[in-house]
Amino acid sequence: MSDAATQRWGGHILEAALQVIAEEGFAAVSMRGVAAAAGVSLAQVQYYFRSKDELLAAAFEHVSHEVVAQASTIDTSGPPQEVLRALLHLWLPMDEPRVRTARVWLAFTAAAVTSPDLGARNAAVDQDLRAHFAALLTEARTRGELRTDLDIDGEATLLLAVVDGLVVQALTRPPAERADLLVAGLDTHLNRLFATHP
Amino acid sequence: MSDAATQRWGGHILEAALQVIAEEGFAAVSMRGVAAAAGVSLAQVQYYFRSKDELLAAAFEHVSHEVVAQASTIDTSGPPQEVLRALLHLWLPMDEPRVRTARVWLAFTAAAVTSPDLGARNAAVDQDLRAHFAALLTEARTRGELRTDLDIDGEATLLLAVVDGLVVQALTRPPAERADLLVAGLDTHLNRLFATHP
Repeated sequence: MSDAATQRWGGHILEAALQVIAEEGFAAVSMRGVAAAAGVSLAQVQYYFRSKDELLAAAFEHVSHEVVAQASTIDTSGPPQEVLRALLHLWLPMDEPRVRTARVWLAFTAAAVTSPDLGARNAAVDQDLRAHFAALLTEARTRGELRTDLDIDGEATLLLAVVDGLVVQALTRPPAERADLLVAGLDTHLNRLFATHP
Repeated sequence: MSDAATQRWGGHILEAALQVIAEEGFAAVSMRGVAAAAGVSLAQVQYYFRSKDELLAAAFEHVSHEVVAQASTIDTSGPPQEVLRALLHLWLPMDEPRVRTARVWLAFTAAAVTSPDLGARNAAVDQDLRAHFAALLTEARTRGELRTDLDIDGEATLLLAVVDGLVVQALTRPPAERADLLVAGLDTHLNRLFATHP
């Protein structure tokens, strides 16, 4: 099979795995269930992924790449505060695709606590995000948009915590309440962070 | 069996269930596994809990009551900002018991997304916490410690998101890095929230 075909079929199975995780949760994932959701045979799933752990690791990488690919669509020409706001909005679960991604993220994050392999992958993604936030905050400080006495790494960690926590809160609340709490929460945090008076 | 004995044995089984969730994750929970962890027979577990769902619901209520009971030990005589800080510190995973509670919380929160029963229980606990935070923030505002133009309910939601997000971040990081990021993150948020200038 060509590389492109391998990638296409492997990707189709991974999309099915993410759908199962989003709808039924992490505990519901099985090789057989993912095969059924993808409309392929168990043997086809096993051709691409030797075990459930391998399938889950690939699904985690797949959704992480999706999120990074979305981030690269952001217009980065504006002020760092606006770039950051646009970037963070990408992850707020305000429509079906982002709700699915948020549910998958929460399932992986919980599973990462008891899986050393997923834990290492999750920690690496978080470290990349914090570094990216820190770079934007440093640029904002250079431009005089951020107070000079702020701890950039601490603020990057807090920013990631705010986004994570808002996503958790949103998933707990009815869909109709989500957009308001997400946008208001993020704006309140960013406005106070970027307030220039001491 | 007396009520006290029923409660003692039921509680012992629930503690074992929480230990299994903290160590192996939600997916690993089974009636048989919890019986083994509790050192009792499967029949004894089934005597108290008719199904795994019933056991998990009881385990959720058990850990929620533990957290509420701890909150009642807080000295509430000081300024609201200090009461709030002390209250939030209770949940930061900075020692083994709180790490266990945090891991259990994250497992239940993820499971709540795909379980209507756990979802309703989780939403009710979050609503109680937000109401409690809102009451403390209202008191702070009455005492002149908080700006009058803040949206109290929005700030209560953001505060819960900050705590949730910091706990998620802490569990992702090595234990040695946790205390610093948790305390610094919470203090940064509270200091900016309680800053009285506009």
